Amino acid sequence: MRVLGIDPGLTRCGLGVVEGSIGRPLTLVDVSVVRTSAELAVPDRLVTIEKGIDARLDEYQPDAVAIERIFARSDVSTIMGTAQAAGIAMVCAARRGLPVALHTPSEVKAAVSGSGRADKAQVGLMVSRLLRLDSVPKPADSADALALAICHIWRGGAQARIDAAAARVATAGRSRP
Amino acid sequence: MRVLGIDPGLTRCGLGVVEGSIGRPLTLVDVSVVRTSAELAVPDRLVTIEKGIDARLDEYQPDAVAIERIFARSDVSTIMGTAQAAGIAMVCAARRGLPVALHTPSEVKAAVSGSGRADKAQVGLMVSRLLRLDSVPKPADSADALALAICHIWRGGAQARIDAAAARVATAGRSRP
Repeated sequence: MRVLGIDPGLTRCGLGVVEGSIGRPLTLVDVSVVRTSAELAVPDRLVTIEKGIDARLDEYQPDAVAIERIFARSDVSTIMGTAQAAGIAMVCAARRGLPVALHTPSEVKAAVSGSGRADKAQVGLMVSRLLRLDSVPKPADSADALALAICHIWRGGAQARIDAAAARVATAGRSRP
Repeated sequence: MRVLGIDPGLTRCGLGVVEGSIGRPLTLVDVSVVRTSAELAVPDRLVTIEKGIDARLDEYQPDAVAIERIFARSDVSTIMGTAQAAGIAMVCAARRGLPVALHTPSEVKAAVSGSGRADKAQVGLMVSRLLRLDSVPKPADSADALALAICHIWRGGAQARIDAAAARVATAGRSRP
């Protein structure tokens, strides 16, 4: 399966596309970062992020989208923009009918490094090893996006299919007379 | 000017369209609430909200959009969904090049009732008086959306034009060689 991992952020939004399946080698398809200037108004920054995500979805046609789950207890000064970027990412995927999975930072760290408390450097190093890259992807947002995609391939794919099926059943149930 | 006021929320998103200008009577154009079921996945709920907002923008062609400014210190259990709904609202407006203004709850209360600490009932009552309605719009989200639109007509219009002009100048400055 091919997964677009998104590390949401208003200033830097990491986007990583990885292809693979459980027990098979992983392949890096694309990695990039959408940057928006703090001089622009937030609505315009969010539109730039939307365009960036839509462009990757158009170009790489992933089977699923994995987004970092944001917690309200995170840094208050950036949490609103991060939450909004994550919301835009969800809408971009859901509009196309793509399954969306949210993974927590500890789930992602545990999936790629074996420890939910790994630091940024360890995550970057493991991502570069798993994808057989010559160097650690920079900035950290791009490495995190790739880690999200890898995490999803390894642990989230099955769960996303279960959730999607449950949602379809729930919707079908409600639309009956 | 015609303004779409949006009281963002994942469960209920209030949408109110008001027409008027400073010193002239205000007119209710439309008021509605987009509701999404908690049984649906968040990405699908956000898409429903996006469709609802886009439909009002298409139908009523407002000159500006006024959205409640969300603070990270609000209720933690609903803040993420509210922030995301607000982000979608911003994108819907900015995509069309419409000016977006964020007004705080106290600014809105002060604009319609004269006091930044007015309660929901007072805001609803003042909205119904200002728009010459027979009853207070229900639920509160719809009254709040109308109050946002009124607030914007009275205090935000000038500011939005200044911000938009500043953003245009900033963008033009950066795009020069």
